[in-house]
Amino acid sequence: MNSFGKLFRVSIFGESHGTNVGLVIDGCPAGLPLTVEEFAEDFNRRRSGARGTTPRTETDQPGLKSGVFHDHTTGAPVMILFENTNTRSRDYAQLRDIPRPGHADFVAMKKFGGYEDYRGGGHFSGRLTLGLVAAGVIAKKIIAPVKVSTRIMEAGGNKNIEEAITAAVEQKDSIGGIIECRVMNVPVGLGEPFFDSVESVLSHMMLSIPAIKGIEFGSGFAAATMKGSEHNDKLVSVDGKTATNYAGGINGGITNGNEIVFRVPVKPTSSIHLKQRTMNVNIGEMTDLEIEGRHDTCIALRIPVVIEAATAIVLTDFMMQAGLIPRIWGKGSN
Amino acid sequence: MNSFGKLFRVSIFGESHGTNVGLVIDGCPAGLPLTVEEFAEDFNRRRSGARGTTPRTETDQPGLKSGVFHDHTTGAPVMILFENTNTRSRDYAQLRDIPRPGHADFVAMKKFGGYEDYRGGGHFSGRLTLGLVAAGVIAKKIIAPVKVSTRIMEAGGNKNIEEAITAAVEQKDSIGGIIECRVMNVPVGLGEPFFDSVESVLSHMMLSIPAIKGIEFGSGFAAATMKGSEHNDKLVSVDGKTATNYAGGINGGITNGNEIVFRVPVKPTSSIHLKQRTMNVNIGEMTDLEIEGRHDTCIALRIPVVIEAATAIVLTDFMMQAGLIPRIWGKGSN
Amino acid sequence: MNSFGKLFRVSIFGESHGTNVGLVIDGCPAGLPLTVEEFAEDFNRRRSGARGTTPRTETDQPGLKSGVFHDHTTGAPVMILFENTNTRSRDYAQLRDIPRPGHADFVAMKKFGGYEDYRGGGHFSGRLTLGLVAAGVIAKKIIAPVKVSTRIMEAGGNKNIEEAITAAVEQKDSIGGIIECRVMNVPVGLGEPFFDSVESVLSHMMLSIPAIKGIEFGSGFAAATMKGSEHNDKLVSVDGKTATNYAGGINGGITNGNEIVFRVPVKPTSSIHLKQRTMNVNIGEMTDLEIEGRHDTCIALRIPVVIEAATAIVLTDFMMQAGLIPRIWGKGSN
Amino acid sequence: MNSFGKLFRVSIFGESHGTNVGLVIDGCPAGLPLTVEEFAEDFNRRRSGARGTTPRTETDQPGLKSGVFHDHTTGAPVMILFENTNTRSRDYAQLRDIPRPGHADFVAMKKFGGYEDYRGGGHFSGRLTLGLVAAGVIAKKIIAPVKVSTRIMEAGGNKNIEEAITAAVEQKDSIGGIIECRVMNVPVGLGEPFFDSVESVLSHMMLSIPAIKGIEFGSGFAAATMKGSEHNDKLVSVDGKTATNYAGGINGGITNGNEIVFRVPVKPTSSIHLKQRTMNVNIGEMTDLEIEGRHDTCIALRIPVVIEAATAIVLTDFMMQAGLIPRIWGKGSN
Repeated sequence: MNSFGKLFRVSIFGESHGTNVGLVIDGCPAGLPLTVEEFAEDFNRRRSGARGTTPRTETDQPGLKSGVFHDHTTGAPVMILFENTNTRSRDYAQLRDIPRPGHADFVAMKKFGGYEDYRGGGHFSGRLTLGLVAAGVIAKKIIAPVKVSTRIMEAGGNKNIEEAITAAVEQKDSIGGIIECRVMNVPVGLGEPFFDSVESVLSHMMLSIPAIKGIEFGSGFAAATMKGSEHNDKLVSVDGKTATNYAGGINGGITNGNEIVFRVPVKPTSSIHLKQRTMNVNIGEMTDLEIEGRHDTCIALRIPVVIEAATAIVLTDFMMQAGLIPRIWGKGSN
Repeated sequence: MNSFGKLFRVSIFGESHGTNVGLVIDGCPAGLPLTVEEFAEDFNRRRSGARGTTPRTETDQPGLKSGVFHDHTTGAPVMILFENTNTRSRDYAQLRDIPRPGHADFVAMKKFGGYEDYRGGGHFSGRLTLGLVAAGVIAKKIIAPVKVSTRIMEAGGNKNIEEAITAAVEQKDSIGGIIECRVMNVPVGLGEPFFDSVESVLSHMMLSIPAIKGIEFGSGFAAATMKGSEHNDKLVSVDGKTATNYAGGINGGITNGNEIVFRVPVKPTSSIHLKQRTMNVNIGEMTDLEIEGRHDTCIALRIPVVIEAATAIVLTDFMMQAGLIPRIWGKGSN
Repeated sequence: MNSFGKLFRVSIFGESHGTNVGLVIDGCPAGLPLTVEEFAEDFNRRRSGARGTTPRTETDQPGLKSGVFHDHTTGAPVMILFENTNTRSRDYAQLRDIPRPGHADFVAMKKFGGYEDYRGGGHFSGRLTLGLVAAGVIAKKIIAPVKVSTRIMEAGGNKNIEEAITAAVEQKDSIGGIIECRVMNVPVGLGEPFFDSVESVLSHMMLSIPAIKGIEFGSGFAAATMKGSEHNDKLVSVDGKTATNYAGGINGGITNGNEIVFRVPVKPTSSIHLKQRTMNVNIGEMTDLEIEGRHDTCIALRIPVVIEAATAIVLTDFMMQAGLIPRIWGKGSN
Repeated sequence: MNSFGKLFRVSIFGESHGTNVGLVIDGCPAGLPLTVEEFAEDFNRRRSGARGTTPRTETDQPGLKSGVFHDHTTGAPVMILFENTNTRSRDYAQLRDIPRPGHADFVAMKKFGGYEDYRGGGHFSGRLTLGLVAAGVIAKKIIAPVKVSTRIMEAGGNKNIEEAITAAVEQKDSIGGIIECRVMNVPVGLGEPFFDSVESVLSHMMLSIPAIKGIEFGSGFAAATMKGSEHNDKLVSVDGKTATNYAGGINGGITNGNEIVFRVPVKPTSSIHLKQRTMNVNIGEMTDLEIEGRHDTCIALRIPVVIEAATAIVLTDFMMQAGLIPRIWGKGSN
């Protein structure tokens, strides 16, 4: 299913080279001020243009089609639609025979029997994350003063990100990266033991984002090499603050009032300019593949704003479940 | 919520030192042969006793209370109940004042207002994973010949696991570890793009298991240091087999027919025999804490069977959604 | 939440006098042939124009915005958008002070704090049922040869429906009606005991439709006056056919292979041309209210096609859960 | 699925002649006082013994197996287990060949392939409603001062219920009835437009209860014979009170602050002492069937407390979604 959330539910739809992508938010509080201008900043962050990112540029003008009236949310479902204006009409037929390595072409064909819209990755395209970013703009407003921030820790194994990208562009290759996300001012007590733990739901969301290969909270994989006496975060205040934060702000699946900290690895962009060897599944023979068109050298550069949005969406739902978000904006906590 | 799954839904309940733990499975196909004997092997794997694990031993006798008739599942909810026979009556009152570092004591108190059953971790206890393992026994039968296996890759940063544990026991400390899970014979096409991707749902489930700090699929965090030309798995057969498996068996959120491969880090057990410095939140002063009782030196040793079970539960649900599991066992694929 | 369904999920959005109404279907099988022409017949049935129905006429041109490619569904979410072209710009401000009797004006104002789009009923409008009808067009194709049909049994208590409407139009009043729905060729075994019984889920859906005041299956309310010896449907064939069908095709929540039969009462349209006495809630005084504009004399005339659609949507989901609908159209039952 | 609810989720399990029936409540607020004694009154109302009800009597002693500690709920899942002590060991094999008219025997056999526990109706038995009543005891406490009440309006078409039952007992037959439910002190604004309307969710729940054949709100089926000018409830106070209550307390799916009023018809008990003609599906021939054992003459007598419980469960969930129920009992509205 292409929807996420229990009380604040985001659904996304569309295809890379179809007429539209978009989203529906169900459960948005009524009375939240909202104008199209507010999306611009995050859309800019997500959009192509930076060195190492694809030159395809979309205007990303959000059409607020429902759930907004007189510049405020109404409490009814918010539908936001984006036109795909910058699609190129070229021949994608080759993809039917030679699925691109690292892409979903092969599985899409098998799962959907060849009926999938295969142009530019179709529904699997990263373009769909525009809907997440739009929902995130709204979610961030709802959860304030809870604040989500991200940074790129490294790209291509290099902390000097510019340098790494320059090299990759020269090699006609692509590189991955690691993004860290931090959430400040988190109330104590969000989340549930076991299946709806904060880690569980955040992981579910993050691993939905194309190119994300994993997630780790707090100490993460390094915890495996630590001793309990090191790893245990000692309480240093009665409101739950700890001297260290190996827990990443979560104990037993529940926020403990410290920063939520997690990191995700982003794989190198699958589309590269180098020639690749792979199989023509129509004739069952190995062949060379050259992928034309526009590619991001390092898709990780565009993902931080998506991670922020995704995190804010998850937290909005948790805070609504905890009764911390008023159903009518500005009218008491409930 | 303490339930997981769309068509094959597992709910768990109980407390470490209450009278019972247990589970309900809703959506189990009718006609599956099932006897109490079949649980023994996996319960043994999970149970304490191995070096480095806690000496608390429970008989773990499964009471099949509903949904099973004449040694077959009936199609009605399967409820399985376990008695807690080996709980020690001792004084847990100290926990109210001095939350144990690394445990959920503090967040539970805040979230549940002091009404939580705090004895031995209460509902947050790893003892609840017994329900997962029981559900996994059933799930593994359902998904065969899909096969899940796990191994401990390292403990305390050491591939020689015995050695690492011996050292930790001597130091009265605890250590973490890394577990790898592989799934063979996976059909192509399980999972959905975006929010119900196979990675998303597996991550959701795995991060529900106490002590798990993250997850990575295929190349995982190492992908961040790779180039696209290296990372892209080249197709080498028309049924989707690839020369490498950096994708971990999943593209675009959907199984590609190769092995699913993921790894999870397990934190060092939070309860240790060493004295710890932390806060008495009742009086707001730092204090020493010594945790008595039985502790696992390396909880990672007991988790592989839980990971297998959790994986099998997730795959059962995906396979049911794909229409691959008959509603009446042995009666055609539907 | 404005979505319905487990595997075949329909979401609706929009407002009566906003720019759009529309729907998203998540979980539609891939490969189903679909063109805009196929919606025309059911949209005509739903649309205004018949005697006793409102003269507002919309073109109801479906915009297939996603999930359809080369005239077939792709397996990705299907989004269908409708423009609202025939809205009148007039003064609705009066509604803020004098909620229309029988309408949702008052509760909307309380629930959404005055931020709701109140024009023409806003999100509560029957115009939203266009999305249900569109989803029903698709669902009917999926479940064939299962066939849903409806008829108006009576209007205004009169089996001569034309006569009843003529009288009501003359009186500037409105009248209700009763609609019966029958489903033929239903497979045995759909539905679940208790909470997901076929009656439960159909009732849930039907009571979502504006103006529907109840539902009864088979004998319905008359069952209360019958004896068990009369009411019990006697089996007369090994495939489940019964001599009578007081059960309405469902036993224990599960389809028994006979026709599903249910009836719903439709209330008289709340908007009438007669002057009404009610309260001005702004000043707390009783006042006269005259509602201008276009009203259906008997909204029941337009609802049968909505009931059919809603029924087909529910059955699609049940049949998908039962593994009876292929995920790729035309490719085996699974 | 045998679970119901979004934030307050009730799951039921068990079989009529198995060892147990029971329930799990997930999402119960922490800190609610709860002792086994509090269930007695409602269990008595549900239990057999009254004239016209079955002489099978169970002790119905609730085993609070999890989620309760020191006589208060803990916030963890509440599991309550009941032993089936009064099952008779007799021969049910006949049911396999001659499904009882009006019962689920035939559909259960088809759906579950003969693996179902067919003894005494198995999982389809009204005995499962004990779990609902238990959950209702808790839900009623949570929603107070919202108050649910029920009454039997008629039995066998007769308002003199005693008389109707006496006659039916003499005739060895069974009779149906109609139950009305009213909810007082309902907050304005519960429910959602369309799919999660209060009518939708209440209907879903009520039609899950065995023997319920329909539901109507407020004017219900009579609305079909009314005119808009009669049916429209005129507002008479600024807080939403209306002069009449044909709406049954709900407009546009949302509570309007008046009493919620609905009625459900209960079919005559399917098991009767009279000889019945039906089919032996094993040999495909008509045969006589005499059902031995204990039967309720009028099951409607036992259902009011189930209706109350079911209503309270639904309202608890709606009130939690509206943020009106504190997560920790007694600690502010959130």
